[in-house]
Amino acid sequence: MSHPFFERHQDVLQQALLALTERGYWSPYSEMPSPRVYGESAADDGKAAYEARLNQPFAFHPAQPGNGNTTGSEVSPYGPALGITYPAVDPEQLLPAMHAAAANWYKAGPEVWTGVALEIVSRLNQRSFEIAHAVMHTTGQAYMMSFQAGGPHAQDRAVEAIAYAWDELRRIPGQALWEKPQGKNPPLRMQKTYRVVPRGLSLVIGCCTFPTWNAYPGLFASLATGNAVLVKPHPGAILPLAITVEVARQVIAEAGFNPDVICLAAHEASASLASDLALRPEVRLIDFTGSAANGNWLEQHARQAQVFTEKSGVNQIVIDSTADLNGMLRNIAFSLVLYSGQMCTAPQNIYIPAAGIETETGHLSFDQVVSALGVAIDKLTGDPAKAVEILGAIQNTAVLERIAAARERGEIVTDSRALQHPLFAGARIQTPLLIKIADVAAKPVTEEYFGPVSFAIATNGTADSIAIAERIAREHGALTLSAYTTDDAVKEQLLDAAVSAGVALSLNLNGGVFVNQSAAFSDYHGTGANPAANAALSDAAFVASRFRVVQSREPVAAAANLS
Amino acid sequence: MSHPFFERHQDVLQQALLALTERGYWSPYSEMPSPRVYGESAADDGKAAYEARLNQPFAFHPAQPGNGNTTGSEVSPYGPALGITYPAVDPEQLLPAMHAAAANWYKAGPEVWTGVALEIVSRLNQRSFEIAHAVMHTTGQAYMMSFQAGGPHAQDRAVEAIAYAWDELRRIPGQALWEKPQGKNPPLRMQKTYRVVPRGLSLVIGCCTFPTWNAYPGLFASLATGNAVLVKPHPGAILPLAITVEVARQVIAEAGFNPDVICLAAHEASASLASDLALRPEVRLIDFTGSAANGNWLEQHARQAQVFTEKSGVNQIVIDSTADLNGMLRNIAFSLVLYSGQMCTAPQNIYIPAAGIETETGHLSFDQVVSALGVAIDKLTGDPAKAVEILGAIQNTAVLERIAAARERGEIVTDSRALQHPLFAGARIQTPLLIKIADVAAKPVTEEYFGPVSFAIATNGTADSIAIAERIAREHGALTLSAYTTDDAVKEQLLDAAVSAGVALSLNLNGGVFVNQSAAFSDYHGTGANPAANAALSDAAFVASRFRVVQSREPVAAAANLS
Repeated sequence: MSHPFFERHQDVLQQALLALTERGYWSPYSEMPSPRVYGESAADDGKAAYEARLNQPFAFHPAQPGNGNTTGSEVSPYGPALGITYPAVDPEQLLPAMHAAAANWYKAGPEVWTGVALEIVSRLNQRSFEIAHAVMHTTGQAYMMSFQAGGPHAQDRAVEAIAYAWDELRRIPGQALWEKPQGKNPPLRMQKTYRVVPRGLSLVIGCCTFPTWNAYPGLFASLATGNAVLVKPHPGAILPLAITVEVARQVIAEAGFNPDVICLAAHEASASLASDLALRPEVRLIDFTGSAANGNWLEQHARQAQVFTEKSGVNQIVIDSTADLNGMLRNIAFSLVLYSGQMCTAPQNIYIPAAGIETETGHLSFDQVVSALGVAIDKLTGDPAKAVEILGAIQNTAVLERIAAARERGEIVTDSRALQHPLFAGARIQTPLLIKIADVAAKPVTEEYFGPVSFAIATNGTADSIAIAERIAREHGALTLSAYTTDDAVKEQLLDAAVSAGVALSLNLNGGVFVNQSAAFSDYHGTGANPAANAALSDAAFVASRFRVVQSREPVAAAANLS
Repeated sequence: MSHPFFERHQDVLQQALLALTERGYWSPYSEMPSPRVYGESAADDGKAAYEARLNQPFAFHPAQPGNGNTTGSEVSPYGPALGITYPAVDPEQLLPAMHAAAANWYKAGPEVWTGVALEIVSRLNQRSFEIAHAVMHTTGQAYMMSFQAGGPHAQDRAVEAIAYAWDELRRIPGQALWEKPQGKNPPLRMQKTYRVVPRGLSLVIGCCTFPTWNAYPGLFASLATGNAVLVKPHPGAILPLAITVEVARQVIAEAGFNPDVICLAAHEASASLASDLALRPEVRLIDFTGSAANGNWLEQHARQAQVFTEKSGVNQIVIDSTADLNGMLRNIAFSLVLYSGQMCTAPQNIYIPAAGIETETGHLSFDQVVSALGVAIDKLTGDPAKAVEILGAIQNTAVLERIAAARERGEIVTDSRALQHPLFAGARIQTPLLIKIADVAAKPVTEEYFGPVSFAIATNGTADSIAIAERIAREHGALTLSAYTTDDAVKEQLLDAAVSAGVALSLNLNGGVFVNQSAAFSDYHGTGANPAANAALSDAAFVASRFRVVQSREPVAAAANLS
């Protein structure tokens, strides 16, 4: 059965399907917070909507199944407590209620699922300013990143997942007439029907740094394949996903379904709700973004579910040579400064031959390259008022502890400094730490120091750098590998290493594209081929096992055989 | 890069892709062992080729990596020992050797993988008679079934898996130009490449009843996505897969690759080779057909691999009413007699209301229905010379033990009898046992009695029958559910139960289609939605995680920006 929402978003859907096979640049949403696109009052309205949320209970209308208790104690990395409480959940009560509420949704079929999912994303786009403030004051991202990554870029990832889901679903016919010739006898004729059956309940476990961007692929892949979705945000970043669930519930209700098809499972940092939910037999799909320890635990223990994880890893840069030294240094420095390195894609280990590198202006020693990188970082963080718009704030104090631990690993090139935010007195701002490890025999850094920490590491040459990077990515995981070289043979070696380690490679980034960035419809985020993630966001494998097909068949009656 | 094999099979590939979305009847190969199709001498040549294998070492040319030891002690269910020995393998030696040998294969790309895989299937088709004898004398299937299920039907399933793989692979572009507008500034331009990277080593674990039909989907799905494949046949049915591997190695070598891309891992029944191989870190994909115990063990323990299992279950028939009593009885009886019920799809539990059923000739009591079914079975097995062509032989003595155990479960309606084969004096032939359980309060039969065993079970009515069938399928697994009803409301209830239990439904089979049969390109074999299997043969999910995509990206040089 078709549906008005499905018709309404045909254009976006068809363009998205084309984009996925062409993988050039495409986005249905503007990443610029421009009044011409979003409306003259959109920015102010969004800010006001966010502020109206503060120091209030966040209530769904109608309420999701619960006992009336509340939870939540988010504190902005920029200082103030948000003061918002959310409905608490009891899995014993909520999960069976969701399953029962979703009965009609399970039967609605691919066009309805796809249409409703696309309508939700379209409404979320209109809420991008409100979501931007919610993301900013939970993750610590600077405002522009909060808008882009928390809003349109996350929405792109949602549309991408929906398009992948539809691309699989549309190839399954609703019915078929099977007619097998029998020589001179009448053919065998069977009428067959195929019903797409969602797995059931999908648990989406959010993270505290990119609550929407990382949760939307799984959330919308599950919703678009007909599952019910329970969104369990990180206790530190509930609001962006609470708004998301609110919008989704409104659209689902408008479409004529029980809004409990999607619910929120907020909880305190001390509670074990995630692991409790993950082992429930009703939960058949789990999408997780977070630490390797938690992700590996889910993969090992939540055996009743299909588990999709994005975990941690060690992202690396191999510097062999460059024809644009300043472009390279600016680009790397920006990648390190951006959101204080609190990105799963941010580089950490930078390998430089101990003998130095060739550049367009001649040879540079290892020390010269490292010093120049330190200067480039300092330049981006020198003016606190400008720096905070790139750095954002530190999401949680564990990041600060990692900075302290990293200082022990080598010689400090550029130390991490606390900065004062011009507007938010209590903001936790910290510039990147760059550590030099000049001893080529030193034990390599194989742990992730999530946050503003990077290591410039001397190697026995580029072949050595590539071998180290390949091994660490393969054994410890990596979401990105970046490299600088002017030598085509080295590029081939890098590509072989990237393939062997199953990591995406970026070459010679020297302008406005950064290794941290992954563009929907073009870049696969994660490969699923090394320990950093067991899935890619998104590809066919990310959606194809979220549903099953149950068929029925029956002989066509003799009368029909004669017609 | 294109390839002559890819060009050669374009027509089959395009028709297969169309068939998968239409799901009507289609097959590239003739299921009739006709001289007009396969050639005047094909049947005799195939028999001679099989006989020349007997009492000889089975040697690959060139040999696969090994130490020169041999293994194998197959005995035909029709009597004689085959006397064939196969190369023994040492995983420590073989797996690293295969990985190294496959280096060029991994890089060859989708068109080469697809073309080579289709060429192998096409050559296997030409070997269908030889394979038929190999299947017959390892599985115990009758000759016609050995030809059809072991030959063209298995080859259909192979082409289906290859087509699914290609359908996913073709949508991934080799490269893309990503061009992002920057307002008045020049656009950001990135050249991107996408390389399909196979998982690595694929382990295919065969079974002793349908060695080719059940192994080909995983084998060809893995090969067509660029993996190396290690085929581990059941110790009782090595030869059909040994011939398969031989053909595959020849084609792979002709295509210019090291034939060790595919190897055979034959072993004795006493050896633990399957579990040893399954836990090897090199093994990244496992396809398994066999017992629930072994399949569940793999799912639990082989965590380094993607595991696809088809296990055991309890297939059921719900009899509510019929407008074609004799057609129904004939059809059910044939399903029970066919290959002595040694099919993962054969029915076992038959639910009939204690109050009886309505038919086109009036009401029949429970006892009358059960007796009539017994008569229908006896009719099919009354003439031993004809009966053995349907029954085939019993694959192994464990089946006989299950018949004995089943006799304890209720009242014998039709006992299982040993028959003498007119040609093979030592053949192990056994007719089906039908047991009646008239007590509606009796503990339901929830165990699989794999073999010629079925239970006619009285229930409190059709609603009760459906509820029992739904619960057993959901909790214990089932590959098939069959039902007879003239009531559209009951059909709806059955479909709801099938969806809830994740089992394929067949309605009112009364002619030449049997519930045991699953037609490639139209029927999904298994759903992956109940404990009988965690995957369907085949669908997109069966192929999409057998490879990953590794991308690289680089800014387009300034010069190119101006052009």
